[in-house]
Amino acid sequence: MDSATQIDSFFESAPPLKDSSKITDKLNQFIHFDSPSSGRRVVCVTSGGTTVPLEQRCVRYIDNFSSGHRGAASTEYFIKAGYKVIFLYRRGTFQPYCSSLPEDPLLECFELADDSDFQVRRSHSEAVKGAVTNHHAAVAGGLLLKLPFTSIFEYLQMLRIIALSMRSLERHAMFYLAAAVSDFYVPWKSMAEHKIQSASGPLDMRLMQVPKMLSVLRTEWTPMAFCISFKLETDSKILLEKANTALKKYKMHSVVANELLTRKEEVTVVTETGNISVCRDKTRPESEVEDPLVELLVKRHSTYIKDAST
Amino acid sequence: MDSATQIDSFFESAPPLKDSSKITDKLNQFIHFDSPSSGRRVVCVTSGGTTVPLEQRCVRYIDNFSSGHRGAASTEYFIKAGYKVIFLYRRGTFQPYCSSLPEDPLLECFELADDSDFQVRRSHSEAVKGAVTNHHAAVAGGLLLKLPFTSIFEYLQMLRIIALSMRSLERHAMFYLAAAVSDFYVPWKSMAEHKIQSASGPLDMRLMQVPKMLSVLRTEWTPMAFCISFKLETDSKILLEKANTALKKYKMHSVVANELLTRKEEVTVVTETGNISVCRDKTRPESEVEDPLVELLVKRHSTYIKDAST
Repeated sequence: MDSATQIDSFFESAPPLKDSSKITDKLNQFIHFDSPSSGRRVVCVTSGGTTVPLEQRCVRYIDNFSSGHRGAASTEYFIKAGYKVIFLYRRGTFQPYCSSLPEDPLLECFELADDSDFQVRRSHSEAVKGAVTNHHAAVAGGLLLKLPFTSIFEYLQMLRIIALSMRSLERHAMFYLAAAVSDFYVPWKSMAEHKIQSASGPLDMRLMQVPKMLSVLRTEWTPMAFCISFKLETDSKILLEKANTALKKYKMHSVVANELLTRKEEVTVVTETGNISVCRDKTRPESEVEDPLVELLVKRHSTYIKDAST
Repeated sequence: MDSATQIDSFFESAPPLKDSSKITDKLNQFIHFDSPSSGRRVVCVTSGGTTVPLEQRCVRYIDNFSSGHRGAASTEYFIKAGYKVIFLYRRGTFQPYCSSLPEDPLLECFELADDSDFQVRRSHSEAVKGAVTNHHAAVAGGLLLKLPFTSIFEYLQMLRIIALSMRSLERHAMFYLAAAVSDFYVPWKSMAEHKIQSASGPLDMRLMQVPKMLSVLRTEWTPMAFCISFKLETDSKILLEKANTALKKYKMHSVVANELLTRKEEVTVVTETGNISVCRDKTRPESEVEDPLVELLVKRHSTYIKDAST
């Protein structure tokens, strides 16, 4: 099977996306909220891991772990840099403006007050106030649109809808593909309808490769968009080589290479003209590597937009 | 391999639990907060699904889906019935007293106020107030101890610690095992150290059966405790038969049989003396099936305690 046939067969076999026309409406309204001539840049940030169902009535699935911290933090820096952000995130993962909140915010941030009412704990009041006000300002200002997914089937169908909606933005569109997308899946039709029984002995499973959507995103869905993908490995020895292969194979504008254990400290931006190491500012404990990373990519995006007009 | 050897080899191969002595201290303090002669009943409610790592540096894993709604709601009814609850829950799943909150509570429940501060939205104020006050009252009153897990390795090690701590309560101890526990796992030592590469072709995997801990819980860890396990199936035809098999094989006092699609409406409590169907009160829209389910099990637990003293 060639790549186009694989992709067609993936989408044909996928369970249909609920509310796809509603999502398209939301996207069109969000993208064209400013006048189309305003030259506003729009970035689609993908975040969190996708799941692969092992049974049609989903009791078990394979999950690609990702807290979504990278995508959520980057969203904040893109908005700060003047971008409109379409945040395509895995349900339950980190949300923009919430990184300084505890794991269980509602129950940890509040306490009982004397009059049997409750109040925000003083220790968390700045974090809660920041989260609520920044989030509301971004959504109300038309700068942030949040769209949740769970499975690989939802993720890829939504990514296609978003890409087709952003196509008209040409070079002002950017994709920042930080989500951890499954490499393997069980085709919907060959999947067990009911829960796999554990009667006896080991379980043998055969998973198929998910067709690579990066190629079709670049060549067909949004051929003019500025595209950044991510490569995560646990083995540093193969990381840069694999990032370089992805850069060429999928014609990405940059690939952000990151290693599982050090990914919050530093990343390497792999480009056609060389590799750029990006570290967080270690003199400030609260600094994040996403700050200089987004700054660098925004600059490169500017150059990419200017290149077209010269 | 016989069952005891399988269990030993599971625990030996598992990555050691962090903070196990801290957890034991917390448990002992919680369980013996009242004087030991007070006859207070303690229930361990397990909730949410376990994960099975496929790689040691966990990027991918198999997840058993469960929102944790059953465990969280049941915890509230057990506390109402006077029990102390050890809530062993999967990180990120439903929490007691939070069922009427929206998916993203912090961002949906609050709004900006005039003075650039924020306030609780009127539409959510009762839900937020209820969640915060009930949760704090339960924790402060020594009625609720929450312990989170993620993987099958953490879950089973924590369950063993809890069971050993509850052993001295004899018949006053209860296990309400609502968590969706993986049937299959990859032994830690045979697991890929690094991320599985997707270079070419399909992925074949062999998963081993998780040894059945219910037997060892009943016969060795806490032989006197009142034990309730759950059976979830998507196929109603095999559900009651499988629940009955579990009842006998693991010597449970009851098995709660539930079907994926109707599990919020009704369940069947399978016992040695027959099956009891439990439905939620359909005349009240807010009623939950966990209300009559916990009521029934509390009564049966009372009978079980009385039986010992006659």
